[in-house]
Amino acid sequence: MEEKIISQAVIARLPRYLRYLGELKDSNVERISSMELSDLMNVTASQIRQDFNNFGGFGQQGYGYKVNYLYDEIAKILGLNKTHHLIIVGAGNLGQALANYMNFERRGFHFKGIFDSDESLHGKKIRDMYVQSMDEMESFVKENDIDIAVLTIPKNGAVKVAEQLVNCGVKAFWNFAHTDLNVPAGIVVENVHLSDSLMKLSYKITRNESEIMH
Amino acid sequence: MEEKIISQAVIARLPRYLRYLGELKDSNVERISSMELSDLMNVTASQIRQDFNNFGGFGQQGYGYKVNYLYDEIAKILGLNKTHHLIIVGAGNLGQALANYMNFERRGFHFKGIFDSDESLHGKKIRDMYVQSMDEMESFVKENDIDIAVLTIPKNGAVKVAEQLVNCGVKAFWNFAHTDLNVPAGIVVENVHLSDSLMKLSYKITRNESEIMH
Repeated sequence: MEEKIISQAVIARLPRYLRYLGELKDSNVERISSMELSDLMNVTASQIRQDFNNFGGFGQQGYGYKVNYLYDEIAKILGLNKTHHLIIVGAGNLGQALANYMNFERRGFHFKGIFDSDESLHGKKIRDMYVQSMDEMESFVKENDIDIAVLTIPKNGAVKVAEQLVNCGVKAFWNFAHTDLNVPAGIVVENVHLSDSLMKLSYKITRNESEIMH
Repeated sequence: MEEKIISQAVIARLPRYLRYLGELKDSNVERISSMELSDLMNVTASQIRQDFNNFGGFGQQGYGYKVNYLYDEIAKILGLNKTHHLIIVGAGNLGQALANYMNFERRGFHFKGIFDSDESLHGKKIRDMYVQSMDEMESFVKENDIDIAVLTIPKNGAVKVAEQLVNCGVKAFWNFAHTDLNVPAGIVVENVHLSDSLMKLSYKITRNESEIMH
């Protein structure tokens, strides 16, 4: 099962399943049918069954899914049962927002340090961490077994910083810099290009207006 | 052509084309072949031609694309030639980060106001705007012809705030709150669920590790 390639579209839906299952767990719901989950999530029950069949099904016909079990299995598929050490590079508003986002830890992502090239930020305390200078970054990454870097820096410096981090052992990037990183094969990148997302919103508005007019 | 339904996957790629074309424009490149663009963007030339064919092609065989023309046409498809008025609801770190993101204006998104329920933030100046109380939001939206709201508030309040905003005329949401909004048909939503994105990163790391081990 581990060898099977799951489509990107299915993977992209897993976090949403996990979010809803987490809320059901929090409300002490023990069991849920694909029909009930379908109503709740506003997707078809057949979509849900198809998605879950990619991972062996998770449930019994006519019996429903056990919420806790399903939650744990999806969390495992997403790798959330593992622990990661991350640093944030860029201590501007976005870096600070992410540093303060407590949900990271719940998911196994441990925030270990934050760095910025701006001297006026050095020593500033962000969620119990002092902002460090970029000169300290390489040795910090090696000494603290950092495997993930969150990049919240302008696009001009990002490619070079990513290169530097790969060289000292970082295996994955959560990239908010407005550029593609061009890292070597085997290094993982998840991009969050906010202005791309804003353009998608713009497209949806435009399409919506033209539908209303026609 | 306006009636044609373009696939979500093609739409999702347009902002990236625009980003590269913008950089070419800034470097005064006038013309580019699909091969050159392919090398630059690390996608196949046939993918590029297929994508552009959805919109009538944009160029001539063997002659290349005119960078300025292509940039303008893609911008038009994305609706970036129009002007929107937006407010940000939630003046925490993320709201402040977005407020300070100057690129909005370049894309026709005019930042008009920022609101928060936290009284200690009221009157705080963020990029020439004072944070206002939630009580002032409805009349502000009506008086300033606001069509887009950016939600950077916790998930608990988000659905209710969205409802309130729809009732006073907001047509579109850029939603960073960690919940689905359930707005009426005809209202546009673009979600940025950061923790979903972090889980996708986690999945990629897990899959990557298992590939290396096998």
